[in-house]
Amino acid sequence: MTYAPNQLSIRSDDGYPTRLDAPMGNIARHCPVVHATPEQRQAGPLDEQELAAFEERGFLWFDSFFEADDIEPFFDELSAMERDPELTGSDKVITDPVSGAIRSVFGMHELSERFDRLTRSPRLLKIVEQLLGGGVYVHQSRINDKAGFQGSGFDWHSDFETWHAEDGMPGMRALSVSLMLTDNGEFNGPLMLVPGSHRQFVPTVGRTPDQNWETSLKAQHIGVPTREQLGPIIEKQGIEAPKGPAGSILLFDCNALHASNSNLSPWPRSNLFFVYNSVDNRLVTPFGAKSPRPEHLAARERTPALG
Amino acid sequence: MTYAPNQLSIRSDDGYPTRLDAPMGNIARHCPVVHATPEQRQAGPLDEQELAAFEERGFLWFDSFFEADDIEPFFDELSAMERDPELTGSDKVITDPVSGAIRSVFGMHELSERFDRLTRSPRLLKIVEQLLGGGVYVHQSRINDKAGFQGSGFDWHSDFETWHAEDGMPGMRALSVSLMLTDNGEFNGPLMLVPGSHRQFVPTVGRTPDQNWETSLKAQHIGVPTREQLGPIIEKQGIEAPKGPAGSILLFDCNALHASNSNLSPWPRSNLFFVYNSVDNRLVTPFGAKSPRPEHLAARERTPALG
Repeated sequence: MTYAPNQLSIRSDDGYPTRLDAPMGNIARHCPVVHATPEQRQAGPLDEQELAAFEERGFLWFDSFFEADDIEPFFDELSAMERDPELTGSDKVITDPVSGAIRSVFGMHELSERFDRLTRSPRLLKIVEQLLGGGVYVHQSRINDKAGFQGSGFDWHSDFETWHAEDGMPGMRALSVSLMLTDNGEFNGPLMLVPGSHRQFVPTVGRTPDQNWETSLKAQHIGVPTREQLGPIIEKQGIEAPKGPAGSILLFDCNALHASNSNLSPWPRSNLFFVYNSVDNRLVTPFGAKSPRPEHLAARERTPALG
Repeated sequence: MTYAPNQLSIRSDDGYPTRLDAPMGNIARHCPVVHATPEQRQAGPLDEQELAAFEERGFLWFDSFFEADDIEPFFDELSAMERDPELTGSDKVITDPVSGAIRSVFGMHELSERFDRLTRSPRLLKIVEQLLGGGVYVHQSRINDKAGFQGSGFDWHSDFETWHAEDGMPGMRALSVSLMLTDNGEFNGPLMLVPGSHRQFVPTVGRTPDQNWETSLKAQHIGVPTREQLGPIIEKQGIEAPKGPAGSILLFDCNALHASNSNLSPWPRSNLFFVYNSVDNRLVTPFGAKSPRPEHLAARERTPALG
């Protein structure tokens, strides 16, 4: 691996340098995508075809993983949270840069026992543990909420880029589970992914400002690839936007490029995200920021393995 | 028809009052959608099924109406225009509110003989004349261009609302022909329509500022229905986004509610729009603005019937 000439200060343990002073080329992923041992691959719950699809494409969709009826209480609890002034005034809540409506609520599994139980759902956890090859904990949980006619989108990015730079996540051994609390359709701003994009790391240019998260969660400007970096990848590999009813689940690799558009429909789009990290990939000192982000954005204390 | 109490100054020839001081309910369309006489219905080129679909839904899609190869010269000429500093500095060119890239070029058929000929294409013109029941002229022509990764969207609106209020178009006897100069897909911000929305007029609140077009063509704030007005219509009638290769044509009624999202893909979306108005529906004094818009936005001089 060659670094840009002025990147003399890159740490020797940094396998994915980013937030650079000068551009550098993409880095081929040197972490596995599926971390299961041969025995774990064999044991399930995912079969060899599903594991191969995740390796190749970087995401898996499970239509109606939960019954829509089971999901309703979560939606109701979320609505109640959104009316709780103590919560909406806290730093766990991020508002929309345009409309001012609630955009994200972080730390869902700590705010609610119902959401916490969901992260431990054995059916779900077994899949996550198989993919990550052993014990996991919740690195971050959040709701991304796009109200009808007002939810702004998210530009293309890799979550791992931020988690590595700002949280000190060393390797790519984490994934997101996105649970649809509402139907996700063509018109309410569904998540778009670039299949196969998780197989290379796109280093970004620009040092991380202090307290970057205070603005980046509304609209990300640092840590996003340029159009020149994105163009060739997306033109070659395309875009997919999985769609389905409330209760469906999207599982995607920590380094998969994803984005979403504004919601111009009257139909709200509420998606719950649980990020699981391997207990063998615990956070160290951030690779591209002066100090780590707050605990509700990136858990580094009190994180026993689930399951 | 009952007006809001303070709308005493609405002109007696105003069948669709809008830009009001106080909200009023929707107005059922009292103009026909298909203006063809029984003989013209019979004569074609559209058959009874297509005519009924346009009446019911407010738009028709013709996949690959022109060959993609025939379309390329138009795209090339457009690119040349976009590099012409005299043109890009003129009031015919509207730039994107976010990126500064070219968003629209107006008066295409006056800038280019090739585009002018296209508006007279007999195959196209016969369809338009059948739907509008006789002679037509070009009320407005424009390109809407969404560059990859940067084209902003358009909020829900009815074109007729603006043409009526700001241009003095008396009745609903006009339609847009949108010719796809690039493929229109799920991810490059295709036009979205609400089927059946053309059958009612949604009056908007808010007086038209002087020279409104100087800002409204970048981002429209006056003359757009509220979320409260849009919600029930879209929830009941849904959204459709016709897609297809370059050379396809979308024909839509002047009062059809439509919108489009940003282009988060690397694939540009360039659509040419020709607005045809019936020669029996020529512009009068604007119904909701102090003075008419410039000629390149709304033709009122020198407009002989085509065909």
